[in-house]
Amino acid sequence: MVKVVLVGTGNVAKFLFDIFSKHPQLRLVQVVGRNVKALNYFKTGTEVSSNFGDLKAADIYILAVKDNAIQAVSKELAIQDGILVHTSGSIAMEVLPENVRRGVFYPLQTFSGIPPKNRENIPFCIEAENEADYSFLEDLAKSISNSVCRISSEKRRQLHLAAVFANNFTNHMYFLASDICTEHELPFKLLKPLIRETYEKIMLQDPLDAQTGPARRNDLKTLEEHLLLLKESRHKKVYTTISESIQETYGKKL
Amino acid sequence: MVKVVLVGTGNVAKFLFDIFSKHPQLRLVQVVGRNVKALNYFKTGTEVSSNFGDLKAADIYILAVKDNAIQAVSKELAIQDGILVHTSGSIAMEVLPENVRRGVFYPLQTFSGIPPKNRENIPFCIEAENEADYSFLEDLAKSISNSVCRISSEKRRQLHLAAVFANNFTNHMYFLASDICTEHELPFKLLKPLIRETYEKIMLQDPLDAQTGPARRNDLKTLEEHLLLLKESRHKKVYTTISESIQETYGKKL
Repeated sequence: MVKVVLVGTGNVAKFLFDIFSKHPQLRLVQVVGRNVKALNYFKTGTEVSSNFGDLKAADIYILAVKDNAIQAVSKELAIQDGILVHTSGSIAMEVLPENVRRGVFYPLQTFSGIPPKNRENIPFCIEAENEADYSFLEDLAKSISNSVCRISSEKRRQLHLAAVFANNFTNHMYFLASDICTEHELPFKLLKPLIRETYEKIMLQDPLDAQTGPARRNDLKTLEEHLLLLKESRHKKVYTTISESIQETYGKKL
Repeated sequence: MVKVVLVGTGNVAKFLFDIFSKHPQLRLVQVVGRNVKALNYFKTGTEVSSNFGDLKAADIYILAVKDNAIQAVSKELAIQDGILVHTSGSIAMEVLPENVRRGVFYPLQTFSGIPPKNRENIPFCIEAENEADYSFLEDLAKSISNSVCRISSEKRRQLHLAAVFANNFTNHMYFLASDICTEHELPFKLLKPLIRETYEKIMLQDPLDAQTGPARRNDLKTLEEHLLLLKESRHKKVYTTISESIQETYGKKL
């Protein structure tokens, strides 16, 4: 029975808690977090503590705290034995203290108040200093996901950056579309079937081939008209920058 | 039995043909298009002609040609009776000739080589010069879609512009993400569960609330690191412009 301690009380910690507390081969022995109130969520499933120095013995300590807290919190942890991993996309494994067995256990997903669906498809990007620990992390990841891969810290940062485009920036495009709708008293829901189709196409087709629209066709007349229609300078700037990027992608010299 | 003539042979024409040729209350009497080879697709289901002057009698003539051809083609059509509509998001109804009963029959969807799924959910945005024709178009649209709305030419242009953000620009974000993956020998498919979650969240949540990421948190350290990681100036420019737009959206004065 693998023993796990979870450090952190945010959305990633909750996600892992929900999985681990129902996992047949794991025993979640403790959740540790500074925020006493936030620990309530975890109380029903395991022991909790707000003292980083008061850790239970475990095979693995999973740090699910904010990126900028990883280094500081990891120094405070009194780990005797077991692997210490963090769950961040952009922080190097080497940020963890040298005197522990280090690794990374990064679920490539967006975690907000709403728990992610299709948990078993969330990719886990794994890294470890030695092969035995890597195998251990791989087995653990495979027991909760059908997509597990070995990714170095350097590549993981690039993957996380790509994820910013695929998730954060895509969401902002949805927002700008909804902003234009609101301004003109049009229901945003009219765009939802289009958003669905855009998503479904990309599951089957390379995004390079799936591109359509005035910038793709280098339809300068429509591009100009659209800029005239946009009132906010922020909208105009985004429109121009992305349109130019599309035009460059498809061979138009600007 | 409503008689329909379809003018055009592109993806929108194919989409409407596929629906109309199986429609119980409609009779597709003719497809007309300049491109003789492209007419082959339609031959099995109806009569075809490459002569815009040789039109069959019909209740409605649906123009599904490129935006920049709408005006010229509509002038060539020898329509005795019946409504003439175009299917474009960005062209005003008034571009059609004055001597016919004019309207707009705009399916808000992206049409490429792959036929769209979930056809019955595609919104139809309708416009007509008189109430009787509007009712006719509304009935026709409702017989093929469960989302029909009356939208003026002016609002339709704004909706089409919003659709550029929701579809074209979103797809380019996917492309840039895939470009970063390719550059670093990372499989793009690792991002697909994230793309799915981003899409699924927006079906339930306002995009303003769904936003996450370093720009949303105003996490300047990560924003700087990301800019250093990006090699191509095009990627950098898109990254900066969208991040600034997100920062402004959430109250950061730049």
